[in-house]
Amino acid sequence: MNDSFPHDLPNEEPGEVGLVRWQDYVCRDAFTFECGSTIPGFTLRYETYGRLNAARDNAILITHALSGDHHCAGVHSIRDGKPGWWNNLIGPGKAVDTNQYFVICSNCLGGCQGSTGPSSKNPQTGKSYGLDFPVITIRDMVNAQRLLLEKELGIASLYAIIGGSMGGMQVLQWMIDYPDYVQRVIALATTGRQSAQAIAFNEVGRSAIMQDPGWQGGAYGAGAGPNVGLSVARMMAHITYLSDKGLEEKFGRSRKEGSGGERFGAEFEVESYLHYQGQSFINRFDANTYLYFTKALDRFDLYGEGGRMEDSFANVKSRVLVTGFTSDWLYPPEQNRAIVHALLRCGKPATYAQLDMSLGHDSFLVHAPELYRLISGFLAN
Amino acid sequence: MNDSFPHDLPNEEPGEVGLVRWQDYVCRDAFTFECGSTIPGFTLRYETYGRLNAARDNAILITHALSGDHHCAGVHSIRDGKPGWWNNLIGPGKAVDTNQYFVICSNCLGGCQGSTGPSSKNPQTGKSYGLDFPVITIRDMVNAQRLLLEKELGIASLYAIIGGSMGGMQVLQWMIDYPDYVQRVIALATTGRQSAQAIAFNEVGRSAIMQDPGWQGGAYGAGAGPNVGLSVARMMAHITYLSDKGLEEKFGRSRKEGSGGERFGAEFEVESYLHYQGQSFINRFDANTYLYFTKALDRFDLYGEGGRMEDSFANVKSRVLVTGFTSDWLYPPEQNRAIVHALLRCGKPATYAQLDMSLGHDSFLVHAPELYRLISGFLAN
Repeated sequence: MNDSFPHDLPNEEPGEVGLVRWQDYVCRDAFTFECGSTIPGFTLRYETYGRLNAARDNAILITHALSGDHHCAGVHSIRDGKPGWWNNLIGPGKAVDTNQYFVICSNCLGGCQGSTGPSSKNPQTGKSYGLDFPVITIRDMVNAQRLLLEKELGIASLYAIIGGSMGGMQVLQWMIDYPDYVQRVIALATTGRQSAQAIAFNEVGRSAIMQDPGWQGGAYGAGAGPNVGLSVARMMAHITYLSDKGLEEKFGRSRKEGSGGERFGAEFEVESYLHYQGQSFINRFDANTYLYFTKALDRFDLYGEGGRMEDSFANVKSRVLVTGFTSDWLYPPEQNRAIVHALLRCGKPATYAQLDMSLGHDSFLVHAPELYRLISGFLAN
Repeated sequence: MNDSFPHDLPNEEPGEVGLVRWQDYVCRDAFTFECGSTIPGFTLRYETYGRLNAARDNAILITHALSGDHHCAGVHSIRDGKPGWWNNLIGPGKAVDTNQYFVICSNCLGGCQGSTGPSSKNPQTGKSYGLDFPVITIRDMVNAQRLLLEKELGIASLYAIIGGSMGGMQVLQWMIDYPDYVQRVIALATTGRQSAQAIAFNEVGRSAIMQDPGWQGGAYGAGAGPNVGLSVARMMAHITYLSDKGLEEKFGRSRKEGSGGERFGAEFEVESYLHYQGQSFINRFDANTYLYFTKALDRFDLYGEGGRMEDSFANVKSRVLVTGFTSDWLYPPEQNRAIVHALLRCGKPATYAQLDMSLGHDSFLVHAPELYRLISGFLAN
């Protein structure tokens, strides 16, 4: 199963990964979570781009953010107008060059895009896990990825790992837990621990979901669920992914076309945009996964009981690039910089870059040539 | 009805307004809103502190923010442990010195703390107005206050008006609409127009309320209503009233006492705090008023179609102090400063102050000796 895609598929555009297919890694061994609970096995859905070389030493793992998935580059059909979420970064001749690297991205354990999570069937009951799914941590996500890489793809070490936001937390956890496995890491728009404000926003989202009568204690059926709560949670969270300035530049106080008589309906374009974000989210995301993943974020804390990130970083062997974005107020630059400062205090080869972009937290996902140059330079070194 | 309180009440503490009572101004004339709709009359609940002097020229109007009310100083009983919301500013010998000034504060028209609003009985139907209440604007609030001052209290001009946030918008609207009536204005933590981000947060709150089955199109009965939606809206909004740094200083990642086994319940203190804010809000605030007031905020725009605040300020005669707070990201310093810059460009006597406080938007409400010195100095001049 370690062959790469899309070598046998037509219609590749120059510079584009082109057509891709996902695959499923089915682990039939029991998996024990950090909390101590066990599930009898799991599936991780993943995609790969480029080819693993003969030395098997050119693999780059991409880790996704809260609402991301395994589909980070290419398209699923020739009529697919929406390429993977990091398609601007990954492809032949791009910063993460698939002519050179073998790129892997999996939907996280606990997710809802094909990997085993709360919406998956519990083989012991025949029903969805729901809240019987074990509490998941960033470390659990990493451990499942490690099994995929070793058992399924036969990869003994990674050339690099790259991820932003929750993906950045996985990057940091990887370099801490498997120091000999990872040569380089790039963490973007992330934090060494979730701040009180970030916890607060997540808790509002969880409250909206869990107080929606459709949630039913997490036991809603397929196709049903707390759609109102999930859309409200997403609308709010989406604001935290952007920035005051970015919203002002994109929408300002522009009125929605045809608006006028509304008293409480969407009147400004920014409102319509948020509603669209909320509605499209409920069609693609599972509310229980949202609860599990936001709790994994909130509990992430590399400072530990001693309040020193250095204690977490003592065994790190990877070379580290952390990048913050000036307008990111969810994981602001200083939280990114603090990771590098702690690594430097431990004598580790870490460096911090900061990009002046106005799009807020999501800056790491948008077209950013300066970011691409940083990443390709760091990877080449 | 223009006698002041609490001159006939016992138990005043030195430096405190002491016991106060509210009063109701009942206007039996029809009131026409900016939208063109009319109600047959209205009530404004208000309090006063200090005495109106013989010249009737020492009156200061206090205007309240979204969730505020008429009770801004003193206590309602000798066992009342919670004085009015701006008690630290107003009282004998305080910045707004009730030995010197006659202070008035009314619950805004459209409110739910005793003034006529959507939860009041519509005399034409015998039921609550609900969504039959006319769309309300900041200008409508000001016009109702003007009737209170002139018709009820016999005040022909104001020594000053002071307000923060939505109260600051009223301050600005007052000086624009009634330039000869207002000698001095102090607007705190406010804006000349609601930003896209602020609109976005309000729209999430409205969505949570209006999608709550308890909302019933606004026709919920007394004691019922969209409590889940309103509490979610308040929890979220409360985050925007504080700051990343303020939350970090106050809560950080402190765990809730007794927490541990929770999987999705409140685990961190910041979460418990927010839940308390949400729950206490539903006991004192009406969901429809929340909709009406947030729309009044969102539609507030002194830039107008020409995009120039100067056009709104052409006739201003008041002396103006605007104060921003460094950590306020809802109405950040630059939005406050922009008001003064526009006034200065019109040749108006305006000045901007900025206080370095870490508590975010709500900084204007907390104990702040530097703010008090600014206000008392400006009032004395």
